[in-house]
Amino acid sequence: MTTRLDQQLAFLAEVEKLKSVTRATPIHDASRPENSAEHSWSLALWALVLADQAAPGVDTLRAVKMLLVHDIVEIDVGDVPIHSANGTAHGSAEIAAQEQAAAMRIFGLLPNDMAQEFTALWQEFEAAQTATAIYAKSLDRAQPVVLNLQAGGGSWIDYDVCYDQVESRVGAKVALGLPGLWDAVKARILPWFSARNRI
Amino acid sequence: MTTRLDQQLAFLAEVEKLKSVTRATPIHDASRPENSAEHSWSLALWALVLADQAAPGVDTLRAVKMLLVHDIVEIDVGDVPIHSANGTAHGSAEIAAQEQAAAMRIFGLLPNDMAQEFTALWQEFEAAQTATAIYAKSLDRAQPVVLNLQAGGGSWIDYDVCYDQVESRVGAKVALGLPGLWDAVKARILPWFSARNRI
Repeated sequence: MTTRLDQQLAFLAEVEKLKSVTRATPIHDASRPENSAEHSWSLALWALVLADQAAPGVDTLRAVKMLLVHDIVEIDVGDVPIHSANGTAHGSAEIAAQEQAAAMRIFGLLPNDMAQEFTALWQEFEAAQTATAIYAKSLDRAQPVVLNLQAGGGSWIDYDVCYDQVESRVGAKVALGLPGLWDAVKARILPWFSARNRI
Repeated sequence: MTTRLDQQLAFLAEVEKLKSVTRATPIHDASRPENSAEHSWSLALWALVLADQAAPGVDTLRAVKMLLVHDIVEIDVGDVPIHSANGTAHGSAEIAAQEQAAAMRIFGLLPNDMAQEFTALWQEFEAAQTATAIYAKSLDRAQPVVLNLQAGGGSWIDYDVCYDQVESRVGAKVALGLPGLWDAVKARILPWFSARNRI
């Protein structure tokens, strides 16, 4: 007989695989690519630490939960780097369908009530309509920018990115949830692009 | 002038280094050692997923916060593997003093009120006296056991560990917060030790 605890442990074993999904952004010292599990940890901390920068109506702990699960579908689908040639696939119907199937499979390992709860968290994040999801999405866009700068350029170098592309692909979305954060990040990264004539 | 946001971003940049602290436990497919950042992500999920296994009085979301920050001091001190020759150093006065200094330095990057909040979370975890901290500690002990099994043995092989050592070093502490979880984990790992005559 499969108990509730068996289902919980099966889910926890499966999601370990997120540690093997690599991202375009390097870690802080540029020694290797970041993986989606440690990225999710970083973001959960961002959500806690920047709580007082959030707009009214944001539930910080719900944002933490969202960010802990937001990339789990990548176990089946992988990460689509935002600055890659394939970056326009972000939010495409094809990727969305693959991610939906992944959510069904992976969250479906949990007991029904928890599968529904986790799927709802992930869907709220993806839809980015609630104040909490907008906050979480803004953090998910801002963290790789700060990490690229810390690592000396990261995916900006790999994909030959100019500042305007960061502004349009990332900045506008960060500013949606955290305008003050984007101002601060912008001030930090502009010298990097300016020094390379990539404004 | 250093703003509150500057302090928050300085802390978030510093803690990225936790991604470079490696542990004795390998990741799920045994391809490399787990790092303390992704370990913290995994544990935060354990705390959410196993919430209904927790004892009365456990604040699950506080446990999540605790687990997100519980290993940050390892940026300065490193991880002490529980089965290593040095494993008895767990909780020694020397390690405790080094960790205290690390907490002062790293949490001290935050604005004062947050530095106090994060230090208190970490101290509550370390002291393991509240129901919430006991729950979080039990998860921190259980996850590496499950991960070792998933990876084919992991640090049990590296340190030539027998079942009785797992039971005394780990099992007793897991059972303190989550007796049902330890029963389930025990049933899963006993065949591994039995097959190797390492009971």
